Amino acid sequence: MTPAVKAILDKYEGTSPAVKQKLARILMHGRLGGTGKLVILPVDQGFEHGPARSFAVNPPAYDPHYHYQMAVDAGLSAFAAPLGMLEAGSETFVGQVPTILKLNSSNSWATSIQQAITGSVDDALRLGCAAIGFTIYPGSDLIFESMTQIAELRAEAEAAGLATVIWSYPRGGELSKDGELALDVGAYSAHMAALLGAHIIKVKLPTAHIEQAEAKEAYKGTDWSNQADRVRHVVQSSFAGRRIVVFSGGASKGTDAVFQDARDVRDGGGNGSIIGRNTFQRSREDALAMLDKLIAIYRNEE
Amino acid sequence: MTPAVKAILDKYEGTSPAVKQKLARILMHGRLGGTGKLVILPVDQGFEHGPARSFAVNPPAYDPHYHYQMAVDAGLSAFAAPLGMLEAGSETFVGQVPTILKLNSSNSWATSIQQAITGSVDDALRLGCAAIGFTIYPGSDLIFESMTQIAELRAEAEAAGLATVIWSYPRGGELSKDGELALDVGAYSAHMAALLGAHIIKVKLPTAHIEQAEAKEAYKGTDWSNQADRVRHVVQSSFAGRRIVVFSGGASKGTDAVFQDARDVRDGGGNGSIIGRNTFQRSREDALAMLDKLIAIYRNEE
Amino acid sequence: MTPAVKAILDKYEGTSPAVKQKLARILMHGRLGGTGKLVILPVDQGFEHGPARSFAVNPPAYDPHYHYQMAVDAGLSAFAAPLGMLEAGSETFVGQVPTILKLNSSNSWATSIQQAITGSVDDALRLGCAAIGFTIYPGSDLIFESMTQIAELRAEAEAAGLATVIWSYPRGGELSKDGELALDVGAYSAHMAALLGAHIIKVKLPTAHIEQAEAKEAYKGTDWSNQADRVRHVVQSSFAGRRIVVFSGGASKGTDAVFQDARDVRDGGGNGSIIGRNTFQRSREDALAMLDKLIAIYRNEE
Amino acid sequence: MTPAVKAILDKYEGTSPAVKQKLARILMHGRLGGTGKLVILPVDQGFEHGPARSFAVNPPAYDPHYHYQMAVDAGLSAFAAPLGMLEAGSETFVGQVPTILKLNSSNSWATSIQQAITGSVDDALRLGCAAIGFTIYPGSDLIFESMTQIAELRAEAEAAGLATVIWSYPRGGELSKDGELALDVGAYSAHMAALLGAHIIKVKLPTAHIEQAEAKEAYKGTDWSNQADRVRHVVQSSFAGRRIVVFSGGASKGTDAVFQDARDVRDGGGNGSIIGRNTFQRSREDALAMLDKLIAIYRNEE
Amino acid sequence: MTPAVKAILDKYEGTSPAVKQKLARILMHGRLGGTGKLVILPVDQGFEHGPARSFAVNPPAYDPHYHYQMAVDAGLSAFAAPLGMLEAGSETFVGQVPTILKLNSSNSWATSIQQAITGSVDDALRLGCAAIGFTIYPGSDLIFESMTQIAELRAEAEAAGLATVIWSYPRGGELSKDGELALDVGAYSAHMAALLGAHIIKVKLPTAHIEQAEAKEAYKGTDWSNQADRVRHVVQSSFAGRRIVVFSGGASKGTDAVFQDARDVRDGGGNGSIIGRNTFQRSREDALAMLDKLIAIYRNEE
Repeated sequence: MTPAVKAILDKYEGTSPAVKQKLARILMHGRLGGTGKLVILPVDQGFEHGPARSFAVNPPAYDPHYHYQMAVDAGLSAFAAPLGMLEAGSETFVGQVPTILKLNSSNSWATSIQQAITGSVDDALRLGCAAIGFTIYPGSDLIFESMTQIAELRAEAEAAGLATVIWSYPRGGELSKDGELALDVGAYSAHMAALLGAHIIKVKLPTAHIEQAEAKEAYKGTDWSNQADRVRHVVQSSFAGRRIVVFSGGASKGTDAVFQDARDVRDGGGNGSIIGRNTFQRSREDALAMLDKLIAIYRNEE
Repeated sequence: MTPAVKAILDKYEGTSPAVKQKLARILMHGRLGGTGKLVILPVDQGFEHGPARSFAVNPPAYDPHYHYQMAVDAGLSAFAAPLGMLEAGSETFVGQVPTILKLNSSNSWATSIQQAITGSVDDALRLGCAAIGFTIYPGSDLIFESMTQIAELRAEAEAAGLATVIWSYPRGGELSKDGELALDVGAYSAHMAALLGAHIIKVKLPTAHIEQAEAKEAYKGTDWSNQADRVRHVVQSSFAGRRIVVFSGGASKGTDAVFQDARDVRDGGGNGSIIGRNTFQRSREDALAMLDKLIAIYRNEE
Repeated sequence: MTPAVKAILDKYEGTSPAVKQKLARILMHGRLGGTGKLVILPVDQGFEHGPARSFAVNPPAYDPHYHYQMAVDAGLSAFAAPLGMLEAGSETFVGQVPTILKLNSSNSWATSIQQAITGSVDDALRLGCAAIGFTIYPGSDLIFESMTQIAELRAEAEAAGLATVIWSYPRGGELSKDGELALDVGAYSAHMAALLGAHIIKVKLPTAHIEQAEAKEAYKGTDWSNQADRVRHVVQSSFAGRRIVVFSGGASKGTDAVFQDARDVRDGGGNGSIIGRNTFQRSREDALAMLDKLIAIYRNEE
Repeated sequence: MTPAVKAILDKYEGTSPAVKQKLARILMHGRLGGTGKLVILPVDQGFEHGPARSFAVNPPAYDPHYHYQMAVDAGLSAFAAPLGMLEAGSETFVGQVPTILKLNSSNSWATSIQQAITGSVDDALRLGCAAIGFTIYPGSDLIFESMTQIAELRAEAEAAGLATVIWSYPRGGELSKDGELALDVGAYSAHMAALLGAHIIKVKLPTAHIEQAEAKEAYKGTDWSNQADRVRHVVQSSFAGRRIVVFSGGASKGTDAVFQDARDVRDGGGNGSIIGRNTFQRSREDALAMLDKLIAIYRNEE
Repeated sequence: MTPAVKAILDKYEGTSPAVKQKLARILMHGRLGGTGKLVILPVDQGFEHGPARSFAVNPPAYDPHYHYQMAVDAGLSAFAAPLGMLEAGSETFVGQVPTILKLNSSNSWATSIQQAITGSVDDALRLGCAAIGFTIYPGSDLIFESMTQIAELRAEAEAAGLATVIWSYPRGGELSKDGELALDVGAYSAHMAALLGAHIIKVKLPTAHIEQAEAKEAYKGTDWSNQADRVRHVVQSSFAGRRIVVFSGGASKGTDAVFQDARDVRDGGGNGSIIGRNTFQRSREDALAMLDKLIAIYRNEE
């Protein structure tokens, strides 16, 4: 256990040794092991967008083993996916990478801003996962239902010694499209995840837009043009740095943008990246090269 | 156990010996036993369309024993039906054919795109079934509810050592009538079933139509005029062939069409057919002759 | 145990001895005991229409004991009623007539086509009942909910060794008023009850009307002017005679019509009558005389 | 145990000794103990109308002890109230008066014709109550939900040895304002409570109005101008007198009207009064004098 | 234990020693320990308004430890917060201040007048809390649901030996904006909390406005211009002083107003203040000075 990881774990008060051990397993794994930084590979696009939109550009990615192998070979911190996908490689890759079972999922035809629960804490235990993952949509008309679901699942996971990762993605209700990425909204979403008891908080990198009329007063006279400052504000809103916060980059984009995002996360005090489409929608070679550099950035080598 | 069956079972990682034993029971049974191919007889049309529309054309089929006997005499891999029908022959035919208890069902008067749960895992255990069956309607406004139901039933079945078969039938919401059979939609539906943890996936044979605007990019420049290629894409979308996929032929039709479908399933790497109305809406003699040839096709003898 | 009753019980495959024993208790009781025929007295009109509309024409019928005594004195096969009414005579008449606890009920003010659950399997056990009774309304927008309720209650009853009687009454949704009594609809409703696992199916005597456009093809060229033929079709739709089917006569009417109905049920292969208002809305003397003749018809003595 | 009380208890067939003992506790308590008559003090107006509308006219009534003391000093049969109020005097008055825990309650802002469940059978056990109380609104669109709730609570109470009191108050749906007090509707509501298994039925004194078009035939040619006759009809509709029926007087009114109501209840064969606002919205002295005379009426002394 | 505290505890009849011990822990803690008065620090604005609107004016308040430390250093009676925030300081501050786990929470985007359940009684036990906290919105269309939720949670808390604090905040439905603070509405809300079994009732300081038309009669001819009188009426409506009632001051305001409110609460017989934004939206120094004087007021030293 390195001092960096111990310092992080010490902030998780009122948390059982079993859960801390799972956080440690993620934080001590892979090429960022021991640094307090982490890169997670999430693959739930099959539910969200369907297989062809996700994998046709790189057909080997239709195979769940492809993603496990990528997470292992790139030395990533963890692999997150829904039940079927995690299960499909659970024997071949046992012990090679920490896994996070994504317990809810949406799909392209959804007419409500909500997700279906498609897995359980028992499934996560059976597959030897380190954590459960769950998405909430702050702003949605159904957010109360989701909050109650994750409150129950988190309690069950805690009792089972598993950590909880919350994807907090503003969407729906009165939120404008710009508002989904607004700084005030992103900070609020991270704070909600922290209040809900998330051990790892996953949010999108926010823009400098301030969405809520009522919040404008609180942000008056401040300058948010620098992305690292925005990251710092989200981390501050996550119990002043007492919680691990990782940022997603969204749709597939150029590597320079990916690297700049990572530098900003690092410089703003964030804990790392969760990077899916930008990984598996590249060729394996390109993806490995990209992840190699990403890790170097988090290791302060770039 | 043949090498072909063992190869299939080996792909089911993280699956208990009890569940694999049920898959083996189906895969080793009947005239396709050991080939890795299978033909399943499903009889739930009584719920879906009522008894007269289902059986008046062939009155002996009003009797549940008729279907059991057909599955036994034709050497099929399994018989799937709702509670009442399975129960009605459960002693006479005990041990003669693997059974799948269909746990949900719709009916002609349904005003929502959803099904009622009409059986339980305990019922399946009591009747000695090898698997549970469940229908989801990707595209429906109620799909989240169905996904959560099957997630719970699958977990319960797994704990009871039963396999799970998911009928994944796109329907409802914004889907056009053509879209229900579209290639992108069918591949997506198969993938959803795989992510939900289905051991056997049942879908309809797709057309070459691409339904979703967002998916057109992913399919651009590809040619799907060949049905075997479409089957191959669905199999690819089912974890690159790691899951058993069977195809249904839909409404009753000419035997030539039935046989061509089977050849395409076989040539595209699918695992077999699920064939209901095309069986019991023919005379027993015609049905046996048709199934005989169907099996020959899957045995590569035709 | 007579051969006629044994032949019926033998058709109940996959059914526990405890449940068969309850069916036997009903089939061996009263003046039709051993014949394979049965007449059941149901008294739930108090819930459905209120006490005055049910009993003012024959005031002694306000007393639950009146109905128990009628069932006993007329030598009927069973007495079916909601919780309060069964309970009110459960000591005085203990062991004198098999009872069926009706678990759900509607009322005159209902604005949805559905019933409230007003009793439980535990209540049925406590009161020493032979079976539970449950109404479904095929055609209703809420039929899925009812199907799931009875699936659960049936499983619970089975585990407790109680038989299940399903009242399958088409109503609601797109059904026309004529359609509620249509032959195709009645046969469909009986089949649904059979698939749901009913041990005894209760339907209304159908007319020759065919309601569903999709079903017309299946009935084309057939003649349903004879009521006994219609009964035979309903029995055929109930697993080709593998299930006990009893018919209700509906609103109070002349005795000649009641007797003709019974002859048609008998000649069409139905198992008997369930006759409420036509019993208790006559004087006790008239009712006993009518039931006496009804039983004679089923005993082939008239 | 007096013969009058024994005669009542003997009508409760299929009822456990534990529940009968609770009925006996109420019937043998206070100044009407042993007569088979009873007067109950209900205080749930605080939920229904708020504290000021209930108690400002007689400020000592803000204190829960005031009501307990009134029930004790007036020698009433039982005190009924919601959780908080019963609990607030549960030690001071332990053993001094039987209590009934009202398990559901409405309030002035309710926009649906329904009540919230605010207590449990476990609460009633913990507080040493003799019975649970529950309101249903026959006529309401939500009546099915309420019926299912009380069916479950009654079963739970029965298993715990507690009696069940049902307040059956027609309201909502297509009922006219006059209809809420109509004779046919009141008799129907009492009958529904009896079918639901109520041990004590509480209804309002009905008017001579007949509300339901379908019921008019049944009441044709009868004269209901006498209130005692109307009481008799409600009692008849409650299993021909097999259930205890108590009547409420509604809003606060003159003592002469209160006494006349009681005489009519007595003369019509009803079991007593449930009298809240007419008690606590008078001064303690006036209330005690009124209750003294009320009891004298039921003792046939006035 | 002081006589003042013992006198309060003695009013909690029917309450287990375990729950009374938790009330005693709060009443005996801090600088008001033993006086029967209390000041509680609540911090759930992060859920309600987001982090920036809550804490940007005083950035150290982003850290959960800041609030714990404030409650400890100011000698407050208890600290109330949602799960994540309580957990984040649960080891550092163990044993230093009684905590109240707020079990439900709203947020800025809520489109219904309701809150999500975000914690459980088990969470409260695990974190060593003295009580659970829960908000109801009397007036809301969803109040029945909330009432049933708190009835269940209260029973569970009672069984676990934890006290229950109800935040009773009129809002929604037909209530006008002025009505949310009306005297009749506030007194009604406090009474509802008492009937629901709250051990500590938290309401807002009411204005002299009377909202409900039906209530005007009850308040006719009375003068409510004095805030202490209004407090007295709320306390009277809380079982005539048998329940602890604390008042909140609402949005951040000048210290003079805060102090006057406290004097009125004290003089009207209220038990204390619950003061959040007025605490943490000041600098630590200012807040400590303000709380120091607030406590002096409750100690009758100012």
